[in-house]
Amino acid sequence: MIILGLDPGLGTTGWGLIRAEGNRLSHLANGQIRTDTREALAQRLVALDAALTALIAAHNPDHAAVEEVFVNSNPQSTLKLGQARGVVLLGAARSGMSVGEYAARLVKKSVVGVGNASKDQVHAMVARLLPGAAISGPDAADALAVAITHAHMFRSAQQLSERAKL
Amino acid sequence: MIILGLDPGLGTTGWGLIRAEGNRLSHLANGQIRTDTREALAQRLVALDAALTALIAAHNPDHAAVEEVFVNSNPQSTLKLGQARGVVLLGAARSGMSVGEYAARLVKKSVVGVGNASKDQVHAMVARLLPGAAISGPDAADALAVAITHAHMFRSAQQLSERAKL
Repeated sequence: MIILGLDPGLGTTGWGLIRAEGNRLSHLANGQIRTDTREALAQRLVALDAALTALIAAHNPDHAAVEEVFVNSNPQSTLKLGQARGVVLLGAARSGMSVGEYAARLVKKSVVGVGNASKDQVHAMVARLLPGAAISGPDAADALAVAITHAHMFRSAQQLSERAKL
Repeated sequence: MIILGLDPGLGTTGWGLIRAEGNRLSHLANGQIRTDTREALAQRLVALDAALTALIAAHNPDHAAVEEVFVNSNPQSTLKLGQARGVVLLGAARSGMSVGEYAARLVKKSVVGVGNASKDQVHAMVARLLPGAAISGPDAADALAVAITHAHMFRSAQQLSERAKL
């Protein structure tokens, strides 16, 4: 099963692809989609959508997992983030993938073990869980962390359902 | 020139199509795209995108005009609105239209004459400016008002540029 993790942002959207087979996770690819701050908002959203669509077509993931947004105290930042997040959710769901959403605290707890882990801790733990992955930056690390969280959640749900069948 | 005005929202997105020829405006169509509150966010965004894409394909507008968002004091509402707005801006820009964004105050000033006009005043004035239009609801009225604003702005810009050539 290939999982695409996404950490949306208007300036930078992190993405990370992992393969999950039972308890085994392996890294496939990761990166950061950047949009040109000199362009108009609508054009930046078109660029983000095009990059995400190309990524999905190239890797054909089975599931997508998106970080739930930390709602900022600055409404303009929240609005910007919301606009990028809408485009990212649309791009993932339009291709027919199921889209899981995970709160940042849950992602940190799932990857590092504590809900208030720092960005550096997340990055370090992602690098340990996915040996050999060259992580493009903090947003790509967060995206990989969301993908790992989805793999854990999916595995737990499967195990529960298998036990229910016994 | 056909102008598509849009008033984005996750629950209801208003739209209005007008034809502008010089100073003459006429109504073509208007409506409200609703999404099912029982569906997951990503699916609601897919439904909104599909409806908007069908609308653009059916009417082939030349320009799109989108109301700038009133940033709410409730961050969760701002985020929802942002997500819908991102999808609406993307849908309009992806089809190659130029996308104008207009602040709510400017729209009210352009249509009613004052920046703090009420929703009822906007609705009544849109009905007067576009005789014969059966307006689907307040969000459709707002969308038609944004389209009218774009027509005014475009006409003013044209006249300035014509004067500059004399």
